[in-house]
Amino acid sequence: MKLASLKHGRDGRLVVVSKDLSRCADASAVAPTLQAALDDWDAAAPRLNEIADALAENRIAHRPFDPALCASPLPRAYQWLDGSAYVNHVALVRKARGAEVPASFWTDPLMYQGGSDCFVGPRDPIATLDESWGIDLEAEVVVILGDVPMGASREEAANAIRLVMLVNDVTLRNITGPELAKGFGFVQSKPASAFTPVAVTPDELGQAFDGAKVDLPLLSFVNGKPFGKPVCGNDMTFDFPTLIAHAAKTRALCAGTILGAGTVSNRDVGGGPGKPIDEGGLGYSCIAEQRTVETIRLGKPVTPFLKFGDKVRIEMLDRQGRSVFGAIEQDVVRYVRT
Amino acid sequence: MKLASLKHGRDGRLVVVSKDLSRCADASAVAPTLQAALDDWDAAAPRLNEIADALAENRIAHRPFDPALCASPLPRAYQWLDGSAYVNHVALVRKARGAEVPASFWTDPLMYQGGSDCFVGPRDPIATLDESWGIDLEAEVVVILGDVPMGASREEAANAIRLVMLVNDVTLRNITGPELAKGFGFVQSKPASAFTPVAVTPDELGQAFDGAKVDLPLLSFVNGKPFGKPVCGNDMTFDFPTLIAHAAKTRALCAGTILGAGTVSNRDVGGGPGKPIDEGGLGYSCIAEQRTVETIRLGKPVTPFLKFGDKVRIEMLDRQGRSVFGAIEQDVVRYVRT
Repeated sequence: MKLASLKHGRDGRLVVVSKDLSRCADASAVAPTLQAALDDWDAAAPRLNEIADALAENRIAHRPFDPALCASPLPRAYQWLDGSAYVNHVALVRKARGAEVPASFWTDPLMYQGGSDCFVGPRDPIATLDESWGIDLEAEVVVILGDVPMGASREEAANAIRLVMLVNDVTLRNITGPELAKGFGFVQSKPASAFTPVAVTPDELGQAFDGAKVDLPLLSFVNGKPFGKPVCGNDMTFDFPTLIAHAAKTRALCAGTILGAGTVSNRDVGGGPGKPIDEGGLGYSCIAEQRTVETIRLGKPVTPFLKFGDKVRIEMLDRQGRSVFGAIEQDVVRYVRT
Repeated sequence: MKLASLKHGRDGRLVVVSKDLSRCADASAVAPTLQAALDDWDAAAPRLNEIADALAENRIAHRPFDPALCASPLPRAYQWLDGSAYVNHVALVRKARGAEVPASFWTDPLMYQGGSDCFVGPRDPIATLDESWGIDLEAEVVVILGDVPMGASREEAANAIRLVMLVNDVTLRNITGPELAKGFGFVQSKPASAFTPVAVTPDELGQAFDGAKVDLPLLSFVNGKPFGKPVCGNDMTFDFPTLIAHAAKTRALCAGTILGAGTVSNRDVGGGPGKPIDEGGLGYSCIAEQRTVETIRLGKPVTPFLKFGDKVRIEMLDRQGRSVFGAIEQDVVRYVRT
């Protein structure tokens, strides 16, 4: 089942989307919003599945599915937790600045709480006030959870995964350094994130999702040029159930929590830092990592961060080459008040 | 106007509470939940005020107001940002461990994003799995905001304050150290917070709120014994408009954002670290600060963190001695799944 939220008020209007992303059917009779469906998932899911079946068989009123009309599947959420599961990425960043990776980083996940009060739509711009803040993409896989009790086991954590989607977790790199040095995590460093047009139930990923890792490449493009294609299931030190259980160690998590695994990053075939795509590598999921590799190889970063007018595209294709979630496509623009 | 949410489903049921906290009237015809009222405040506020007037004059159906039936005024919120405005507190903690306070701490607010997906009610227990995590209260003043645009001025920030309340921002001190050392802020260190039964519009504070600081003592009790009574308007390095503008520097804030000013802490009359109440001081708003002062004075902390069976009470009285928000009253208990 594939679900989306058309722009409507603050919380969108829930629709079921066809597997090929061409059509959608209103689902507001089941639940007006995706959050409402997640709040009562056991009742809502079978009825949403019925709509999906009817849509597949053309037995229900529908209309063309246009990602430009979409809000984030959850236009705002009660929780957005982002782990850093690809410790390779963290190790690279540290290496570039000559710092050690604490041994605990390989056993104890890094995780931060992100702003979730107003996500932007999958085709909305990345709008900032100042280009010099160092605007960067971060392509990631995220899951949306049902209720998770405090102290949940790995199995309970795995069973709480309701939906999967992608995020562009935009980061302001030149603000990150001073902010993280204060020790309280990211606030100003992270403007509004954008998610894919569609969130899908785990079964839509078929064999590519084993309940813990998504075994498909994550495709990023900058200004139309391939930028990254690392495989999400590789070099993932902490899988989704581990990250969920980490988050739930001391508190219950409410249905509708979005939990990410962090910027996807693969070591290169030789085991060293990744190469850019145009050198035959798998590329990157954020410019900061490319700049880090450049620092290691060339002594200094070369690739600039994003500028006003740049374009970012993030997508994932299944093994038959079909888009699973639709694409995030964002222009970088100067923020103007509406 | 004073507002509360009676326990009902995940988001509560909005009621208007009388100024003396004795009675309440249903407000769900105006807005089913407080979040719904905040989403359309300009339309909802005048109608909620009408209910408040009718309640004051006994012209509307009402019932006794029982804080034990309350959820948090926002049972879950889309954002919970907590600043550390009382830099004195931070300076003390650093002093106790022999660390310097960076000069920037006096000009650039510390702020973290907290978990907001499932707050507990004002009389619900502090439930944790493990007493050895170092359970601590943190008594604070918080505001609930309307929409704030990115890059808001101080004046715009001040105008966005819709409601004021208190929080017990429970902290697990023995988890905090290792977690903050990772640099990504608090996730496991902060279990669910509890807020006062009632959130009030700024006018309810009268002269005690100038739009920036609340000039009243914040009263904390542990096991019935006075623990703290620092004045919130004193030693507050960053006032609410400053904290709001800080949070909105790079992103808009959505209506319903809760923003706190951090653990209230006063220097003692002589300018040095605070004294306990039983030595004639103003006491503390968290045990960690008391332990810090003990470390400075005695070479080691003496007061233990909270244990199962302990009780915490947090309240604020106006200049006539009347409770403004009602009291947070929580027992510390072992978490049991429901």
